[in-house]
Amino acid sequence: MEYRKVGKSGLLVSELSLGSWLTFGAQLDIDNAREAMREAYRAGINFFDTAEAYASGMAESMMGEILKEFKREEVVVSTKIFWGGNKPNQKGLSRKHLLEGTWNSLKRLQLNYVDILFAHRPDPEVPVEEVVLGMDYIVRNGLAFYWGTSEWSSKELEEAHKVADRLNAIHPVVEQPQYNMFVRERVESEYRPIYEKYGLGLTVWSPLASGLLTGKYNKGIPEDSRLAKFPGLKKHLEESKLFSSENLKKVERLAAVAKKLDTELAQLALAWILKNENVSSIILGVSKVQQLRDNLKALDVKDKLTEEITKEIYSIIE
Amino acid sequence: MEYRKVGKSGLLVSELSLGSWLTFGAQLDIDNAREAMREAYRAGINFFDTAEAYASGMAESMMGEILKEFKREEVVVSTKIFWGGNKPNQKGLSRKHLLEGTWNSLKRLQLNYVDILFAHRPDPEVPVEEVVLGMDYIVRNGLAFYWGTSEWSSKELEEAHKVADRLNAIHPVVEQPQYNMFVRERVESEYRPIYEKYGLGLTVWSPLASGLLTGKYNKGIPEDSRLAKFPGLKKHLEESKLFSSENLKKVERLAAVAKKLDTELAQLALAWILKNENVSSIILGVSKVQQLRDNLKALDVKDKLTEEITKEIYSIIE
Amino acid sequence: MEYRKVGKSGLLVSELSLGSWLTFGAQLDIDNAREAMREAYRAGINFFDTAEAYASGMAESMMGEILKEFKREEVVVSTKIFWGGNKPNQKGLSRKHLLEGTWNSLKRLQLNYVDILFAHRPDPEVPVEEVVLGMDYIVRNGLAFYWGTSEWSSKELEEAHKVADRLNAIHPVVEQPQYNMFVRERVESEYRPIYEKYGLGLTVWSPLASGLLTGKYNKGIPEDSRLAKFPGLKKHLEESKLFSSENLKKVERLAAVAKKLDTELAQLALAWILKNENVSSIILGVSKVQQLRDNLKALDVKDKLTEEITKEIYSIIE
Amino acid sequence: MEYRKVGKSGLLVSELSLGSWLTFGAQLDIDNAREAMREAYRAGINFFDTAEAYASGMAESMMGEILKEFKREEVVVSTKIFWGGNKPNQKGLSRKHLLEGTWNSLKRLQLNYVDILFAHRPDPEVPVEEVVLGMDYIVRNGLAFYWGTSEWSSKELEEAHKVADRLNAIHPVVEQPQYNMFVRERVESEYRPIYEKYGLGLTVWSPLASGLLTGKYNKGIPEDSRLAKFPGLKKHLEESKLFSSENLKKVERLAAVAKKLDTELAQLALAWILKNENVSSIILGVSKVQQLRDNLKALDVKDKLTEEITKEIYSIIE
Repeated sequence: MEYRKVGKSGLLVSELSLGSWLTFGAQLDIDNAREAMREAYRAGINFFDTAEAYASGMAESMMGEILKEFKREEVVVSTKIFWGGNKPNQKGLSRKHLLEGTWNSLKRLQLNYVDILFAHRPDPEVPVEEVVLGMDYIVRNGLAFYWGTSEWSSKELEEAHKVADRLNAIHPVVEQPQYNMFVRERVESEYRPIYEKYGLGLTVWSPLASGLLTGKYNKGIPEDSRLAKFPGLKKHLEESKLFSSENLKKVERLAAVAKKLDTELAQLALAWILKNENVSSIILGVSKVQQLRDNLKALDVKDKLTEEITKEIYSIIE
Repeated sequence: MEYRKVGKSGLLVSELSLGSWLTFGAQLDIDNAREAMREAYRAGINFFDTAEAYASGMAESMMGEILKEFKREEVVVSTKIFWGGNKPNQKGLSRKHLLEGTWNSLKRLQLNYVDILFAHRPDPEVPVEEVVLGMDYIVRNGLAFYWGTSEWSSKELEEAHKVADRLNAIHPVVEQPQYNMFVRERVESEYRPIYEKYGLGLTVWSPLASGLLTGKYNKGIPEDSRLAKFPGLKKHLEESKLFSSENLKKVERLAAVAKKLDTELAQLALAWILKNENVSSIILGVSKVQQLRDNLKALDVKDKLTEEITKEIYSIIE
Repeated sequence: MEYRKVGKSGLLVSELSLGSWLTFGAQLDIDNAREAMREAYRAGINFFDTAEAYASGMAESMMGEILKEFKREEVVVSTKIFWGGNKPNQKGLSRKHLLEGTWNSLKRLQLNYVDILFAHRPDPEVPVEEVVLGMDYIVRNGLAFYWGTSEWSSKELEEAHKVADRLNAIHPVVEQPQYNMFVRERVESEYRPIYEKYGLGLTVWSPLASGLLTGKYNKGIPEDSRLAKFPGLKKHLEESKLFSSENLKKVERLAAVAKKLDTELAQLALAWILKNENVSSIILGVSKVQQLRDNLKALDVKDKLTEEITKEIYSIIE
Repeated sequence: MEYRKVGKSGLLVSELSLGSWLTFGAQLDIDNAREAMREAYRAGINFFDTAEAYASGMAESMMGEILKEFKREEVVVSTKIFWGGNKPNQKGLSRKHLLEGTWNSLKRLQLNYVDILFAHRPDPEVPVEEVVLGMDYIVRNGLAFYWGTSEWSSKELEEAHKVADRLNAIHPVVEQPQYNMFVRERVESEYRPIYEKYGLGLTVWSPLASGLLTGKYNKGIPEDSRLAKFPGLKKHLEESKLFSSENLKKVERLAAVAKKLDTELAQLALAWILKNENVSSIILGVSKVQQLRDNLKALDVKDKLTEEITKEIYSIIE
């Protein structure tokens, strides 16, 4: 396992990391989650990601319970604030929810601080000054070492940095965008001017495009898959045209490349992401420990991704 | 119940809210106050307003006791500092009273923080730098999420913002002015340039002009009314010419409009305020729970306030 | 008793106040000190002054013990840091001693904060940036509401203000200089440009010129006087030429003025200081409660100080 | 013992001080370390230096245990952060390690704060903004009074000061470089423009060039010497050419000078360093209490270092 700096910051995260979205408190009970985190740690993963929104807080509670057996300094823990409840002031990035949400997350995680606190989405209803000062408060009060954003546009990032400069506030250092072979625009184009200028790091999610890049949906939707279990997710994906017949065809061609390299499609898809040096870490979501073990094999595939193979992959996905 | 942003800030308050002035610890005992807050909450009210001055601190103590049955994140609590006692340094906005007053208010409220802390009046005896830095201390130490002012002139607000800019201090986001059909100058004219420039929100008090707009004083002063109970208030209102015979005549004409719309004058007067989009919330003061229920009906009247009716009202009150 | 603002700040102090220099822990034991503070409080005095140096900390310990019977908001307590011990780093205004000294003073005073923290002298060995940032730390951490200086030159005050501006740090608001009929230069000339420009307040010490202005030293040194008890003080005063035969003659002429006004010289000397509107408070040091009662009578003498009398006094002391 | 200001800061340190590198927790057990610290304190040493890296934290634990018998205000304690462990994020100057390392060091030292916190090395992997803001957090939260650097280049120091100016953050005040008769370039040339400009103080280490300047290595490596005990150290020194035959010859000539002055070479070497007024303190490392006593005699040698003798020494070592 290699460790990469989160952008220009001094924080080091393992290139593969373990998330808890849709899994902790849902597909994984506490025993399975514990096994997954132990296995991840044994493999060198030091970065564990969660959010107040995941399983209505239960993902944080579960992770917090398990984290007690790790040495605090050896792990990097992140959580995200945005969706904390349905009442007014329980969501978004107002100072009220940002602080109340963080305090509640830390209680569930049984931690004094997280390493990274993410604004889980941009909030057009709140002035960026309020968000930046809220995050500044959190970092300067020791509730988080760093702050970042998730799914913010480059324009929104630019504005946050300008405001941080103007108010002499702590700058964000990391974005958590979706990134995979089928969702590439933001990471490969939109953020391009931002990386160098502000030292942005990326911890990317949905590296397998909600499972599409495992190839398993090429034969219909398996009964125990997330798409079967989370109907909302399925509907969302259908609408986004990710699961189009065109994409399913591309998946078949990509699977052929993987076979040629004597590996699995999922591992190829992960290794391909790791080739992007702007990526700090890929957040894996696993519903079984075996999946984690399979994903970890992606590390061995990195070397097989020659320039030629990369070219071939781009010819399929572009 | 709709929720409105407090100016440009991210904080959401219910368009109607419950105050404690003259009522908590005076017209309402703890049981009645509790019933009022429960009824308010059931109706969707999330914003509760008090002040260190109300009933010599007892309004805060009472509200604090009742607030324990609400989830902290679901309510927005404000208090105001200015009149904390008669000794030197127990009133005004000096750093000493601002901080000691806030600490004492939080103790009575049994809270770690309020959502909004108001400077209850401007204090010409204290440099605005001292007030702004005092409020900055309060927000940056987590004793309040936001700070605001009450009955400050637009010139005083301008100066506070300029000083906050110069000292890189937290800006105020909300004013609490008097506003009703008979007191309109400040909200409708004086603050006009401020709303957009600084994103000012308004939580308005005395929406029924001390009861004048209920019509009840048109037949003399009822025995159980506030005017009968608080002689100082009566004298103040007489001197301010609010209860002039001219105004009493206007009240009769407004009552006729209300009747035409098949509603009560009080409800019309509240609905009329809600038409002003610079208003974030109307603070209701009720001496009986039934009054609250009556006032809540104003929400149904909003739609009846067509352009034509609004014009008619202005022809009466201007 | 009138209350005056400490310069432009919002803090109010009684025009007469009680100090503890040379008295608490020395001439006054705990019972006498308690009686003096109670008498002072009854007379309207709200400001009590001490220092880490006084009686090697015992003045603070004594005052802290007695302060427990007063309501914190009703009193203004100040202490001063400079001489905390003989070891390196136990004196002066280094960040180390400023903070350690303040923590120790607050422990002895049994308080969470003082109202004013004074830098007891300028410290040429420490950069003014370090002093200003140390005081800024103290105020921003709630250990003091305001900070001031004692016996700093106008040049040193100017520099402190400039540095505070540059570092966006909290400004000092008050000086504690010696001021009486025989020591007037600093208060009446040197600080003149500072008062308006920075809003400087003054809490003055030695208003009776170490007793010279009581007239008691005109008949030799009484056995129970401070000069008899503190030989170091006597030597210092002799060297400073304060107790010169020329001054003793002036004292006789001033006593004649007092007699003409049907009052005592000491009371005249205090009332004369109160005529200076740059003075916020006169710090009285008393070795007997009766002395305090006598000094308080100065308040009645203020009105007798007509323009004519003031002129006569100046003709004597200039 | 004289006390010197740490650069322009207000902190005073004894010109000789006691370090714990290679000794506490290694050559010295708790009893010997205690005896050394007591002896040092008796001789007027007030400055004790350690680091998280020394003996894997045991040097701090040992020093912390012994420090309990000293009055906190009378000692100056420093520690250094950089090497806290082998896992990712356990070393370097990232905000994560800087803060976690400091919290852990303070726990081992059983202190609320150190007087000086050093960045034990520069960290090219971390933006200087992150380091400066991390140190600023530490000072503004009362975990250290001052911060400094160890073995930073003048260019790195310049950048830190510029960033501190730009972010209005606390500046570093002290460097801890190696300095002795054989390692002079940085202290005597490179830092020259820095001393006055930023008021840099120096607490220097390895004053005897790892024992070379005791003369003991001129007859081979003694069995109980550090070089015999720490093979890594020996290898490092051989590679650095410090222990070259050329240098061993110089040592012989220097020993002759010492003899002429009726003193030992080690004492001469220390006294020679004290002649440099940019040096605030020499950190002594002793493996026996007797060594400390011998080193303390250097104070008597200072006066013997006439201009002529100094010239003679420079003719040998240049």
